[in-house]
Amino acid sequence: MRVLDLLLGRPLASDEARGEQIGSWAGIPVFGLDALSSAAYGPEAALTLLIPLGVAGIAYIVPISMSVIVLLAIVYFSYRQTIQAYPGGGGSYTVARQNLGVSAGLLAAAALMIDYVLVVAVGISAGVGALVSAVPRFQPWTLWLCLAILAMITLVNLRGVRETGLLFTVPTYLFVGCLLLAVALGVVKTLASGGHPVPVATLPRLPLIAAAPGLWLMLQAFASGCTAMTGVEAVSNGVKAFREPVVQTARRTLTIVIVILAVLLAGIAYLVHAYGIAATNPGQRAIAQNNYLPHSFATRSRRLVYSYGIYLLAGLAGILLILFRGVTDRLIPLFAVGAFLAFTLSQAGMVGHWRRVGGEGATRSMIVNGLGAVATGVTVIVVLVAKFVQGAWVTVLLIPGLLVVMAAVRRHYHRVFLETRSVAPLELNDLTPPLVIVPIKNWSHVVKKALRFALKISPHVRAIHVDCGEGTSLFQQEWCRYVDEPTRRTGVATPQLVVLPSRYRYILSPIVDYVLEVERTCPNQQVAVLIPELVERHWYHHILHNKRAAVLKGLLLVKGNQRIVVINVPWYLES
Amino acid sequence: MRVLDLLLGRPLASDEARGEQIGSWAGIPVFGLDALSSAAYGPEAALTLLIPLGVAGIAYIVPISMSVIVLLAIVYFSYRQTIQAYPGGGGSYTVARQNLGVSAGLLAAAALMIDYVLVVAVGISAGVGALVSAVPRFQPWTLWLCLAILAMITLVNLRGVRETGLLFTVPTYLFVGCLLLAVALGVVKTLASGGHPVPVATLPRLPLIAAAPGLWLMLQAFASGCTAMTGVEAVSNGVKAFREPVVQTARRTLTIVIVILAVLLAGIAYLVHAYGIAATNPGQRAIAQNNYLPHSFATRSRRLVYSYGIYLLAGLAGILLILFRGVTDRLIPLFAVGAFLAFTLSQAGMVGHWRRVGGEGATRSMIVNGLGAVATGVTVIVVLVAKFVQGAWVTVLLIPGLLVVMAAVRRHYHRVFLETRSVAPLELNDLTPPLVIVPIKNWSHVVKKALRFALKISPHVRAIHVDCGEGTSLFQQEWCRYVDEPTRRTGVATPQLVVLPSRYRYILSPIVDYVLEVERTCPNQQVAVLIPELVERHWYHHILHNKRAAVLKGLLLVKGNQRIVVINVPWYLES
Repeated sequence: MRVLDLLLGRPLASDEARGEQIGSWAGIPVFGLDALSSAAYGPEAALTLLIPLGVAGIAYIVPISMSVIVLLAIVYFSYRQTIQAYPGGGGSYTVARQNLGVSAGLLAAAALMIDYVLVVAVGISAGVGALVSAVPRFQPWTLWLCLAILAMITLVNLRGVRETGLLFTVPTYLFVGCLLLAVALGVVKTLASGGHPVPVATLPRLPLIAAAPGLWLMLQAFASGCTAMTGVEAVSNGVKAFREPVVQTARRTLTIVIVILAVLLAGIAYLVHAYGIAATNPGQRAIAQNNYLPHSFATRSRRLVYSYGIYLLAGLAGILLILFRGVTDRLIPLFAVGAFLAFTLSQAGMVGHWRRVGGEGATRSMIVNGLGAVATGVTVIVVLVAKFVQGAWVTVLLIPGLLVVMAAVRRHYHRVFLETRSVAPLELNDLTPPLVIVPIKNWSHVVKKALRFALKISPHVRAIHVDCGEGTSLFQQEWCRYVDEPTRRTGVATPQLVVLPSRYRYILSPIVDYVLEVERTCPNQQVAVLIPELVERHWYHHILHNKRAAVLKGLLLVKGNQRIVVINVPWYLES
Repeated sequence: MRVLDLLLGRPLASDEARGEQIGSWAGIPVFGLDALSSAAYGPEAALTLLIPLGVAGIAYIVPISMSVIVLLAIVYFSYRQTIQAYPGGGGSYTVARQNLGVSAGLLAAAALMIDYVLVVAVGISAGVGALVSAVPRFQPWTLWLCLAILAMITLVNLRGVRETGLLFTVPTYLFVGCLLLAVALGVVKTLASGGHPVPVATLPRLPLIAAAPGLWLMLQAFASGCTAMTGVEAVSNGVKAFREPVVQTARRTLTIVIVILAVLLAGIAYLVHAYGIAATNPGQRAIAQNNYLPHSFATRSRRLVYSYGIYLLAGLAGILLILFRGVTDRLIPLFAVGAFLAFTLSQAGMVGHWRRVGGEGATRSMIVNGLGAVATGVTVIVVLVAKFVQGAWVTVLLIPGLLVVMAAVRRHYHRVFLETRSVAPLELNDLTPPLVIVPIKNWSHVVKKALRFALKISPHVRAIHVDCGEGTSLFQQEWCRYVDEPTRRTGVATPQLVVLPSRYRYILSPIVDYVLEVERTCPNQQVAVLIPELVERHWYHHILHNKRAAVLKGLLLVKGNQRIVVINVPWYLES
């Protein structure tokens, strides 16, 4: 436990949850980092697609970025409304499920799961990509750097929401501050030079015009640029984590995040155009409570976070990083589809919400969310078409796959619930003590303790001895002297001894076969197998004793049935 | 079981052991292969050391080989006597232990363990070495070839003694036949050419005299050449595996093996000298029954062989092959010490045996064995001194290490025996039923079945519910309605409900703590923890349910004590 305390911090009591809640300034690193970090790869992803157009292509970054910013503004106003309507946490799953039905909710959930994994993988690979371009000798370690950062981020997240906020505050504000400063300096220089600044380092030369700009290429660049918007939904999903007044704090956080992101995107687009920079050619959790995911995902850990979700997310992101060798450009095409599909479903759900709620201002809200739904819906189609061949097809296949898995998980839990639920009282008829079967090899304190326990719980005790050709007659004599005679003398129910021959020197299968046979032939009595076990105090003693007791317990559990119970009587060696 | 049957053959009944016994011709591959295969590396190991002497060095192979053959003859007569005196199997451990005491026996055992591992590793690496020199493009695969052959040999050995004999018959006789034919052809050609035959292929040129021959070099070459004798003890160790008349069959096998080996060694030496060939410059089980090794080594498997021994031998040989990259010359210096130490102790033990037994011919036998002991004892010293720096020191360190481990193992088994043995009858006083503790989360068929079983075995039942802040009051109502009322109405002992609060959402530690607490406060009653468990029929359902029941069983076993018993009541889901 000591190591865990050091690594993850002391356990947090359930009633300490309030103290884990955060304000706007801590909320930006926790819920805004996803969105803000997109600025680091979104514009570059769009620029990469403009390379074939040569120098002329660079100019197109401005209209593309403007489109993304307009879309961002629409989404912003939509999510402001979502936060107000769902102060308990308005993730796409919740909003879509409540307003559009279970299937829409699950579709949003599947889309967001894919999106979350990609956000982690792309964010890390983009960061490492930037590091490697600054220090090229780290190039061979790209993948390992990605995985190390992934491990670090996982650990920080496991320490709880509040600490994640505190720990990520400095890097987040440093990142945002540096980027804003760079943009500001660039804008000042550009204006000072009359719109034609001179780069400090010489930029790689591009052909004047390499290809004609087409609608298709523009769509592809726009689709890539849209990745700059992923992560925007995090704030509305995490409303519950904010301090009172919850709605105001969350909305303020969202506003700050979106404004900074918009300024960054606009600034980067302006500077890329002014400097003529081309891209370098490259090389949700409420679902478990509704039974669609294994229940362990709904269990809050020692630090009040959903550890299993963090582990799975880290694991999947790790697999993606390994598969794509930590190179951002290979991951981008899989991205955005999931995020925008979730956006669309969430906004559409909000339209349904306002229609249902009605009242003052409902029509205005409906229009805002409706505009958001249409805009993001169109984007989904654009991204899907533009990126289908490069990787969006993976997402298209994954989403129905996830839906099928989630439906199966839900079905299983439901079946178990139906099979095990009971609204009837305890039946108290026929409480005959069970028939207790005790496998015994030879006479010892271990066996004596087990037999005593057997006699305490039932007068029907049967000892079984497997005869492999050695020691059986000796044991039979011991049995007569040590069990048979004393019980007959004192009037205690005498246990019966059964000797099972074993020609093939198997020990466990004759025991299991016998137990199953007895269970079949005694329909009116439960069978309890009592297993005496020697427990070692030191791990290194384990290799010196066979694991028969443990294996027998496992075999009986697997091969047994409703009427067979296993009792484990341990004998502890003094250490 | 089907796959195992295919891989290892059907299980053999204990009374089929007679049918597994073998005659002389099958005995040669089983017990003689070790000894015969030594001819493939012994002479070459000696020649390698003569390289510094240049062409002149080659001549020394004849006296060195003659010394080895003389030693072989002495050892042969010694072991003939051992076979007669120990028709039940006269391994070095048995002979030394019975005649020289426990320590000498263990020393022989440790020496032979090391020897056996090396025999496997060196035999395989020498074979692969020959293959690689024939087909050089296998060179990069040397280690993998060694490991593949090791796996194959392990599998064959696991199929039983008789099948090993059958399977190895053809290759063994092919090997011996080819080698004998080559030697015979070479001798005929040499005689026909008047002692100066012309090689078919041109041999690498050696300097006439590179260094002066010294006693030290001769000793080193002799020590290496002695590796040709390892494996000779196998026949006398395995006497029991031979068909009746056991002694005659075993002695005949030994004679054949030794004669062939001597002829091969003599022939190779003669031809090496005549052709002027230089070396290419290179790059037992009764112990477990006496408690010195884990007992599993004394258990015969489905094919009547000691599987654990075969696994360990294969594992250690594999490690050696990997450490030394499958190159024979690096392994040779570690070798021979162990084998000859075991020879010496075995022969010395036989001297003691004849002195004790006395009678007709005892003096003659004593002289034969005494001569053997002295000869092999001197060889041990020679090998040790000559090979100390190159690797014999490893063996010198390993032997006491093994002795320490064996003594510790024995001590542990003895302690367990003393602690658990009993010669007293079953105590029948105070058979009060135990206090049964049942951890319960919510009302279900699983819980009902567990509670029914609890009431069958004891009137003292206590249910414990861990309160993590959710569902507790609902459960308390259910308990009242479904357990409390019916039991009070029908007069069955009413189980008590205990609610344990858990601020940190831990489920298992409050249960374990409570059980330990109850055990302390109830000194007169045994405590049984009854764990209801949902058993999955499909492995893929395991991830959907937490493993709390299994973990709780494990925790109680580790943290529990003599007075705590664990009862597992499984609930099987219908599949």
